[in-house]
Amino acid sequence: MLKVGLLGAGRIGQVHAVNIAGHPGSTLAAVSDVNAPAAEALASRYGAAAATSEAIIADPAIDAVLIATSTDTHSGLIEAATAAGKAVLCEKPVDLSLARARACQAAVAATGKPVMIGFNRRFDPSFGALKASLAAGEIGRPELLSITSFDPAPPPVAYIKVSGGLFRDMMIHDFDMANFLMGDAPVTVMATGSAIVDPEIGAAGDVTTAVVTLTYADGRIAVIKNSRRAAYGYDQRVELLGSEGLLQAQNMLENTVVKSTGGGVTGAKPTYFFLERYMPAYAAEWATFVEAVATGAAFPVTLDDGVTALAMAEAATRSAAAGGPVRLDEV
Amino acid sequence: MLKVGLLGAGRIGQVHAVNIAGHPGSTLAAVSDVNAPAAEALASRYGAAAATSEAIIADPAIDAVLIATSTDTHSGLIEAATAAGKAVLCEKPVDLSLARARACQAAVAATGKPVMIGFNRRFDPSFGALKASLAAGEIGRPELLSITSFDPAPPPVAYIKVSGGLFRDMMIHDFDMANFLMGDAPVTVMATGSAIVDPEIGAAGDVTTAVVTLTYADGRIAVIKNSRRAAYGYDQRVELLGSEGLLQAQNMLENTVVKSTGGGVTGAKPTYFFLERYMPAYAAEWATFVEAVATGAAFPVTLDDGVTALAMAEAATRSAAAGGPVRLDEV
Amino acid sequence: MLKVGLLGAGRIGQVHAVNIAGHPGSTLAAVSDVNAPAAEALASRYGAAAATSEAIIADPAIDAVLIATSTDTHSGLIEAATAAGKAVLCEKPVDLSLARARACQAAVAATGKPVMIGFNRRFDPSFGALKASLAAGEIGRPELLSITSFDPAPPPVAYIKVSGGLFRDMMIHDFDMANFLMGDAPVTVMATGSAIVDPEIGAAGDVTTAVVTLTYADGRIAVIKNSRRAAYGYDQRVELLGSEGLLQAQNMLENTVVKSTGGGVTGAKPTYFFLERYMPAYAAEWATFVEAVATGAAFPVTLDDGVTALAMAEAATRSAAAGGPVRLDEV
Amino acid sequence: MLKVGLLGAGRIGQVHAVNIAGHPGSTLAAVSDVNAPAAEALASRYGAAAATSEAIIADPAIDAVLIATSTDTHSGLIEAATAAGKAVLCEKPVDLSLARARACQAAVAATGKPVMIGFNRRFDPSFGALKASLAAGEIGRPELLSITSFDPAPPPVAYIKVSGGLFRDMMIHDFDMANFLMGDAPVTVMATGSAIVDPEIGAAGDVTTAVVTLTYADGRIAVIKNSRRAAYGYDQRVELLGSEGLLQAQNMLENTVVKSTGGGVTGAKPTYFFLERYMPAYAAEWATFVEAVATGAAFPVTLDDGVTALAMAEAATRSAAAGGPVRLDEV
Repeated sequence: MLKVGLLGAGRIGQVHAVNIAGHPGSTLAAVSDVNAPAAEALASRYGAAAATSEAIIADPAIDAVLIATSTDTHSGLIEAATAAGKAVLCEKPVDLSLARARACQAAVAATGKPVMIGFNRRFDPSFGALKASLAAGEIGRPELLSITSFDPAPPPVAYIKVSGGLFRDMMIHDFDMANFLMGDAPVTVMATGSAIVDPEIGAAGDVTTAVVTLTYADGRIAVIKNSRRAAYGYDQRVELLGSEGLLQAQNMLENTVVKSTGGGVTGAKPTYFFLERYMPAYAAEWATFVEAVATGAAFPVTLDDGVTALAMAEAATRSAAAGGPVRLDEV
Repeated sequence: MLKVGLLGAGRIGQVHAVNIAGHPGSTLAAVSDVNAPAAEALASRYGAAAATSEAIIADPAIDAVLIATSTDTHSGLIEAATAAGKAVLCEKPVDLSLARARACQAAVAATGKPVMIGFNRRFDPSFGALKASLAAGEIGRPELLSITSFDPAPPPVAYIKVSGGLFRDMMIHDFDMANFLMGDAPVTVMATGSAIVDPEIGAAGDVTTAVVTLTYADGRIAVIKNSRRAAYGYDQRVELLGSEGLLQAQNMLENTVVKSTGGGVTGAKPTYFFLERYMPAYAAEWATFVEAVATGAAFPVTLDDGVTALAMAEAATRSAAAGGPVRLDEV
Repeated sequence: MLKVGLLGAGRIGQVHAVNIAGHPGSTLAAVSDVNAPAAEALASRYGAAAATSEAIIADPAIDAVLIATSTDTHSGLIEAATAAGKAVLCEKPVDLSLARARACQAAVAATGKPVMIGFNRRFDPSFGALKASLAAGEIGRPELLSITSFDPAPPPVAYIKVSGGLFRDMMIHDFDMANFLMGDAPVTVMATGSAIVDPEIGAAGDVTTAVVTLTYADGRIAVIKNSRRAAYGYDQRVELLGSEGLLQAQNMLENTVVKSTGGGVTGAKPTYFFLERYMPAYAAEWATFVEAVATGAAFPVTLDDGVTALAMAEAATRSAAAGGPVRLDEV
Repeated sequence: MLKVGLLGAGRIGQVHAVNIAGHPGSTLAAVSDVNAPAAEALASRYGAAAATSEAIIADPAIDAVLIATSTDTHSGLIEAATAAGKAVLCEKPVDLSLARARACQAAVAATGKPVMIGFNRRFDPSFGALKASLAAGEIGRPELLSITSFDPAPPPVAYIKVSGGLFRDMMIHDFDMANFLMGDAPVTVMATGSAIVDPEIGAAGDVTTAVVTLTYADGRIAVIKNSRRAAYGYDQRVELLGSEGLLQAQNMLENTVVKSTGGGVTGAKPTYFFLERYMPAYAAEWATFVEAVATGAAFPVTLDDGVTALAMAEAATRSAAAGGPVRLDEV
């Protein structure tokens, strides 16, 4: 039974708490949060203790920590927790600063402890089935990957200002999805963006709408589309053209009802946002972590993966500013 | 917090145990089963006590019982539990004998205690959305209802022999769905069946494949199709033609991946069977029960509903044997 | 080059004229109609002669006649044309009177001339592909067939009164589709109908909404649903459950556009009515006729098929009136 | 009745011949081809005369010419035909040389005669319905356009060598589609390509797989994906994200049959190639031309549109070679 300390009791921390408590191989032992009452409220719901992050990391009875705090604390907590010998699952992104993330990567490498990064979409049943079909050779060799990833509505401008920007905050998931499906990092990153959805976001120095093209050493190409707004809900699709066919992972819908009237044939919208869409993925992610810790198996998504995705976000940010392709190995 | 005794620790009892224990308003207090070790194993998983059904019903600390035992015990346990003042949720069917079910109905009516019957499909998100669209008048007045309900594979002949036959065991769900959507019981029931899927089932006196047509006082018609075998999985669809349009509830699929190759365009199959398809429905059913008990609201599906569906099964059985329509009020 | 006389210049006659004139192996030589100006107008559009039906049948330069006149004239014209040695394609139904149709069948049999009946749906690309998949064994042995056939809007009551009723006028297409797909006529026919769509149609002695169940000697079952009204257009679907899977032929849509907004995900409606849906089928039907005449191949749909479908309509009419199944061999 | 001279009797010329002869407002008067027997064969099928292009253009009895010859002759024939006062419909592209096309544009402008360019996809029912929905404001303001355009199989390398390359030969259709839907030319063009499908095509100096990103003055973005190979057929899709929703035009399928078996749920493939997919579009294109000539209405797609698309192809070719965005006004 894995005794788990949860660092961070916010929205995503609460999702993880359900999975930690609900999994037969793990138990929620302690919860921390900068807002102590929030930690206490969450802890009490599961019979866990509220504590500081430092105390949790220092507690020899804790086997693993799940880091769901604000992004600027991720690197430090990863370093402290691995140094204390904990198994670590950390939410994305590793850091907003690529340099800081790389320092963390070096520090963790010195401990020899593996760290799993919470790229939850790798555990989505449809993306997983797409990857399995690809791996089974069902569409031959991959040639052209497209990722569509639209949020239902933009976050407040106040959030945008501390988010690191669309490429680090939102598209980082898609960079990791590209790496997951292509099995390889790209050679160049070429980005275009605009703030067409909301000029205030533009005034804050960010974009709302972006297209990024990735090129690979062997001639493969990937294209990622992001928008901060899709009036119909959370749009999360992948399609991959291979030498022998096409794979598409389409949206999950709220239900399967179709209504045909004089006005047309209408079906349900996609599930509203990431909590609805990816709840099964978060549970599967946690189950994978627990099993890997129990068996000593390698984590399927590592700190290196987190740093690579962050480097791609950095390259995209530079490309969008300067125009033209940016080599990933020059970031 | 509703303290619940679960009667029956078999496959469906285990599904209910998860929901009882997982719901914030209920706790699993005790479990019974004719196979005592099964009750103990399930009880211990949730910190509940193993006991006999009689002891659970007699225990004043128990607020509600969920009856998930074999069908022949349902009526007696409903009577005993309501007499003891428990809130009761009982799995379908009420009984295989219509006369016995009616006796139970009379006995329960004398106690004044409501009983909820576990027609789980009423709580399926897609069937619920279809009903809501209908109730909102989106297709006008209903005229012609079709229900398709195919199991992936036939049960063993040994099961068939004690099942009460396809109409009482399998189509009873569809009779209740018709009542749920039409808001009314039919006037006549006209059935046709054959054992084309498996002659051994025919030799055991049952059918594998059946079509039942229901007529209503105002000219509406419903048709239900059942098959014990669908090679592609559990096929559970409803479509309803109204004066201003058509509503369809289609199957849930295993995932959203679509593969296009030289051989065609292939998507995922429907989820395999009722545990996969209706897990959310069982949870919603339990939540509805807990809330109704807490608030004193009427149960949305009652013992009367259970008896009506059973009467339709009886009528269908007679119609299939004799040929021609059977009036429901003559059963 | 097949020289063709077209008997009947109404709506369906005009559809056939396009195909006769457009086919490289046939030419439209003459047109008749009870309304002589209509025949002249249509004939002049294609450089054909206007004439009486009698003159066309008597003209030795005419190789084939296509009978698209009113139903009550079909039998007589079939008899006259085959007696004159013409190749004949006649619109459905053969006659409204089963006895008259059987007399025609006997008269034609005496001439030894084959007659093709215009069951156009057999030539629809989707129904054809379904049949081909079935014939290739892709779903194993057929067990349960469902045909859904809804018109967009009911015809005038004046038409209803001379139509022969829904079973002879509308469902006759579906009876033939069942025979086409099952490869066999049923043993019993069991019908239910109501005039829920329009009480005036009920007052005229007909139904608007009907369900017919067919049983076969080997235990197969078919069910046909008809409605005179579907607010969303012409609904023409077939689905067939077999021992190894399910085949469905779905509707043709007006276009492939899908719109996702806050209000849902909306696609195009089915094509509006039979002229839109079955135009390719009419062309393929004509091409099949021309080729069969040229090569001496057997017609794929014969006068016997037309009489069988009419007998099923007769049985359904009786069953709907009396309640209960009617044996086809007793009609 | 428009008397039409068809220049070019190859594959696409034959498609046009059917439409010219079949339209009630036009007649095919003459056909030319560098291969004189080909012109004679096609002409004789429709009762037209075979002639040289020069003779056709010089013939005062000819009202209009449809230019379907090899690309290198387009500009000259457009100039000659407009100078002779003919109404002109010319296949795309105007020319492979942007300079030559611009010279043609200037020469034609001097005549004051309008020229229609055969961007057939603008007349596809689904793309047209998408445009109409957009124009009706159903998804608000457009923000992000995606065009997917894959051929089923690459052409021979010999063809590639004279084609002008993927951007001028294949993607030019998609450039025009972007202009059609966005109502505006882009400011910059940024292209990436590889020859991953076939290294021999790479050795011939072309790409097989390309992604082009277009940016617009107001912040809109478009992305076009092309591949010379899609194992499942001709893939022609458009999707457009707007401020209030998403519009998608999906593929036309060969039929509507869906087969569900233990192996999955399989539907028909997209129609095989442009002749199957766009036959209705070619007919609608011709009808539009005939009506515009008859009424004096403006052509909906002009020589200017043809030159703009060619300039975008030129910009994409340069961008793919150099890396980075190319401004359209600098081409």
